Amino acid sequence: MSETTPTRQISEWLAGLDAALARGDTEAAAALFNDDSYWRDLVSFTWNIATAEGKPKVREMIERAVIPARPSGWRLEGEASEAGGVTEGWIRFETGVARGYGHLRLTGGKAWTLLTTMTELKGFEEHKGAMRDKGVEHGVHPGRKTWLESRRQEEAELGVSRQPYVVIVGGGQGGIALGARLRRLGVPAIIVEKNERPGDSWRKRYKSLCLHDPVWYDHLPYLPFPDHWPVFSPKDKIADWLEMYSKVMELDYWGSTECKSARYDEAKKEWTVEVSRNGKPMTLRPRQLVLATGMSAVPNMPSVPGMETFKGDLHHSSRHPGPDAYKGKKAVVIGSNNSAHDICAALWEQGADVTMVQRSSTHIARSDTLMDLALGSLYSEAAVKAGVTTEKADLIFASLPYKILPGLQVPVYAEMKKRDAGFYARLEKAGFMLDFGDDDSGLFLKYLRRGSGYYIDVGASDLVADGKIKLKSRVAVERIKEHSVVLSDGSELPADLIVFATGYGSMNGWAAELISKQVADKVGKCWGLGSDTRKDPGPWEGELRNMWKPTHQEALWFHGGNLHQSRHYSQFLSLQLKARMEGIPTPVYGMGPVHHLS
Amino acid sequence: MSETTPTRQISEWLAGLDAALARGDTEAAAALFNDDSYWRDLVSFTWNIATAEGKPKVREMIERAVIPARPSGWRLEGEASEAGGVTEGWIRFETGVARGYGHLRLTGGKAWTLLTTMTELKGFEEHKGAMRDKGVEHGVHPGRKTWLESRRQEEAELGVSRQPYVVIVGGGQGGIALGARLRRLGVPAIIVEKNERPGDSWRKRYKSLCLHDPVWYDHLPYLPFPDHWPVFSPKDKIADWLEMYSKVMELDYWGSTECKSARYDEAKKEWTVEVSRNGKPMTLRPRQLVLATGMSAVPNMPSVPGMETFKGDLHHSSRHPGPDAYKGKKAVVIGSNNSAHDICAALWEQGADVTMVQRSSTHIARSDTLMDLALGSLYSEAAVKAGVTTEKADLIFASLPYKILPGLQVPVYAEMKKRDAGFYARLEKAGFMLDFGDDDSGLFLKYLRRGSGYYIDVGASDLVADGKIKLKSRVAVERIKEHSVVLSDGSELPADLIVFATGYGSMNGWAAELISKQVADKVGKCWGLGSDTRKDPGPWEGELRNMWKPTHQEALWFHGGNLHQSRHYSQFLSLQLKARMEGIPTPVYGMGPVHHLS
Repeated sequence: MSETTPTRQISEWLAGLDAALARGDTEAAAALFNDDSYWRDLVSFTWNIATAEGKPKVREMIERAVIPARPSGWRLEGEASEAGGVTEGWIRFETGVARGYGHLRLTGGKAWTLLTTMTELKGFEEHKGAMRDKGVEHGVHPGRKTWLESRRQEEAELGVSRQPYVVIVGGGQGGIALGARLRRLGVPAIIVEKNERPGDSWRKRYKSLCLHDPVWYDHLPYLPFPDHWPVFSPKDKIADWLEMYSKVMELDYWGSTECKSARYDEAKKEWTVEVSRNGKPMTLRPRQLVLATGMSAVPNMPSVPGMETFKGDLHHSSRHPGPDAYKGKKAVVIGSNNSAHDICAALWEQGADVTMVQRSSTHIARSDTLMDLALGSLYSEAAVKAGVTTEKADLIFASLPYKILPGLQVPVYAEMKKRDAGFYARLEKAGFMLDFGDDDSGLFLKYLRRGSGYYIDVGASDLVADGKIKLKSRVAVERIKEHSVVLSDGSELPADLIVFATGYGSMNGWAAELISKQVADKVGKCWGLGSDTRKDPGPWEGELRNMWKPTHQEALWFHGGNLHQSRHYSQFLSLQLKARMEGIPTPVYGMGPVHHLS
Repeated sequence: MSETTPTRQISEWLAGLDAALARGDTEAAAALFNDDSYWRDLVSFTWNIATAEGKPKVREMIERAVIPARPSGWRLEGEASEAGGVTEGWIRFETGVARGYGHLRLTGGKAWTLLTTMTELKGFEEHKGAMRDKGVEHGVHPGRKTWLESRRQEEAELGVSRQPYVVIVGGGQGGIALGARLRRLGVPAIIVEKNERPGDSWRKRYKSLCLHDPVWYDHLPYLPFPDHWPVFSPKDKIADWLEMYSKVMELDYWGSTECKSARYDEAKKEWTVEVSRNGKPMTLRPRQLVLATGMSAVPNMPSVPGMETFKGDLHHSSRHPGPDAYKGKKAVVIGSNNSAHDICAALWEQGADVTMVQRSSTHIARSDTLMDLALGSLYSEAAVKAGVTTEKADLIFASLPYKILPGLQVPVYAEMKKRDAGFYARLEKAGFMLDFGDDDSGLFLKYLRRGSGYYIDVGASDLVADGKIKLKSRVAVERIKEHSVVLSDGSELPADLIVFATGYGSMNGWAAELISKQVADKVGKCWGLGSDTRKDPGPWEGELRNMWKPTHQEALWFHGGNLHQSRHYSQFLSLQLKARMEGIPTPVYGMGPVHHLS
């Protein structure tokens, strides 16, 4: 293009944006964007998680959300770079009430993608670094309380004589990461968890479970794993980490506490949350309620004729204890995603006779290949060495609007298909039904669209290909008898154990259970992009439905996802909650209608 | 001097050293050092912690320790710098068996100070970064053990059916930091601690206690505090951190276990360590025994006539519970160092009538001034921002040989005296006996020489100056009566409580108690530099006696000190132990004779 350096090009573009926005000139600002452009905003202008797609929508967002937020101080941080016609750089900016960080890509001198994220609220910064607390008050303070005395007083009072501003239902990684951020922001919050200890939701799962995502993808906020932490954390190890994290981050974590019901008083702007803490009923009255019960909280348990007559063990995968009791027994596992494969492999290793029932096609990605092709550039030791910290990686990933993500993913999975061609051929020969997603965009899009439909292979696929794990595919489960499973092809599988690895329902199922069907329907389906692919019906939403952002039920929020999402999006949810607590205006831009109830 | 840049000057010097050492040319290597020069080696050449002072001693060390270790690969890391006639840079090097890191200062083109430290043993590197464990073994492994099963098996077997290579007596920060390093190096070790939980040795101290050192100085290895951690950790908070650290670092930590005795079988090269674990006698048979019972483990409890007749509470400061029971009571605190001041202030704040008895002069440094003048350039938020990580700071500090340290410290404390002149004048007016060390070198030298004699003021000195804490100075305690303390000036202080804040004895007192008087005497006094100042008799030793290095008792080691030392020196102790476990030759250079028994 021109002779200007990337740094100069980005700086000049930002200066142009800065000037146009400062004088409230929507047209001049919009003119800086390509027709094919995206502005993704995480809370800083929209008080929402929203992507404006295409110049007209960008123009509208500038007019209705960006300019009213009084932005200023747009500047490049560090040096910009250019590759393949795309010039990109990291940026800083401010609004009237907050500071922000972001990322910009230019093509042909105009914006292609712009990411803006809120980092902190002015006047309400976290007490960190040079701003950290002193720990001891020097000087003389008759009647002073020690840290321990203050901590115990808070534990005794919060939720009893003093109400928390937020109640988080669910103390898995999602609730814990959010809890830590709220604590750092000084937002009183109680995490309510039915299990006794932080980490128990991992401890109680099948014993062979390890994280399928690598360590660089899994850090919690503020306190990264030490550098010997294994690539794939065993479940009990991650559980211990969560427990210690909750303790040292001083979370108000109520274990052995079940949330029974919640209702919102629109007039008082207050929730009434009934819980049972160690068996004792208590009422909490927070201003905000977060359901962090997890993507995997409401088991899908199909109803199969004859289930109740089965004489062996029958359970959903979420209740599967592991293989120890099933040596020499006959096991039938319904399903063919992650849990199904893990459970089948562990059962086989312990000497069970295992059959997997595959009802529909599954995307398989070999772990090593996936790390190498799909995650390696952002989340790996090599990335860390190249200066791509986990925080940077999160932002780079966030800078790619969901609309263009499939196009970027298709070539990755085409390469995967090629590299592991022999592997896939063996699986197909064994009768396994494979897919790479409706549009061949692979694993992460399947996760975003439907949260299911894949297995990250760590060994079980070889057992399937070799026939060691027996496979029945292209069948449905027709009925269950006292000692067997009858399939739609008429075959009958003798069984001592039946595991339904049949996944989980939408998180608003929890809203229905805890609050009301009416509120669940008002809020609508959680998760999914509206990609109009299988299990993710359109219309296109642009962002995940209802996650980490305002819902159609005032003061009700959903938080969840994998460790990456729990880490990254807890930042934006915590800032939204903090702003509301401090009475900072939070005009929400871009709320869409509800298209699906579940 | 010449026209060369600092980087070129250091690189050329290193090339000269490399060549001379490679051809075994002691004279040429020694010729690269000034007459006034120091080579401080942490384990890499000497298998000891030793400083050669002056060219003849450097020459001797080169001949007898450095050349035999087959050094190579000397090179500058990054850029060198020059200021005030001193050119300095960070360096890397290797020996036949290890890799090393260090620091070099040149004056007039020749070495003034050289620090060499061992970072890892070749072939026995820690599994970190790209070398980290995978966590899950991909593939198919019938009968595989999960992480939890393996961990439980180790806990059940180690010390029972399988002996640890190392037993560490004492599970405070010293034992914990060393335990973590040994775990990362794959050295089986059991930490034996009489308290129930890690951190209890902090929890059980007086309730107002906070660390007197700031957070940047206090990190443990591998897992730094998050960036909101308070500057001065309250004792219970640091205790919780130690507990979670021990858990997530997977230490084999035996709480509620008291070490009863230990004896070494010179023929079998094995210790017999008798312990009582939860009240049950057990015998451990490690090859190496580390006493990490702490600088502050053997209380100095003076014997005062009439002590046994006292009707109130009388205890050593290490057993003082805090002020809560003493509101409106009369308290006498014997001593005028850190604990004495902390305890007096807390008692006064709770409404006790408090008298401090000062028997000899004390060095007072105001916390803010100390952080600013003495620690700020290495351990502070500003240092972190300037790229001085805690690891770098540790090495910079280590690069200053103890011989020259007082000369560098005197101006710092002269500035302190000037800055806080009004403060010191008020204290002296109240009768307080002040000093800045025998040679005015201040706090850290007092700590290294005698481990006592100072208070880091966080408020109590004002109470003393104002007469709120009453002061009796220039007196000794003559006798104790039923309800009072009688001093050498004939005065009598009514007392409901007497606290002896009278410090601690040498760590080899523990060797006497656990092993034998004979072994304690063979090893001699621990700590102290032989500076020929009060409580640190000469002759000059050059390094702390017996700390983190071989002693005159084979297979017996001492580990201790503040959090900085526990972090930094545990690296070198752990490598010495690992080398011995792996059968790597460890010829020790520079063992001195024992000059003092305690």
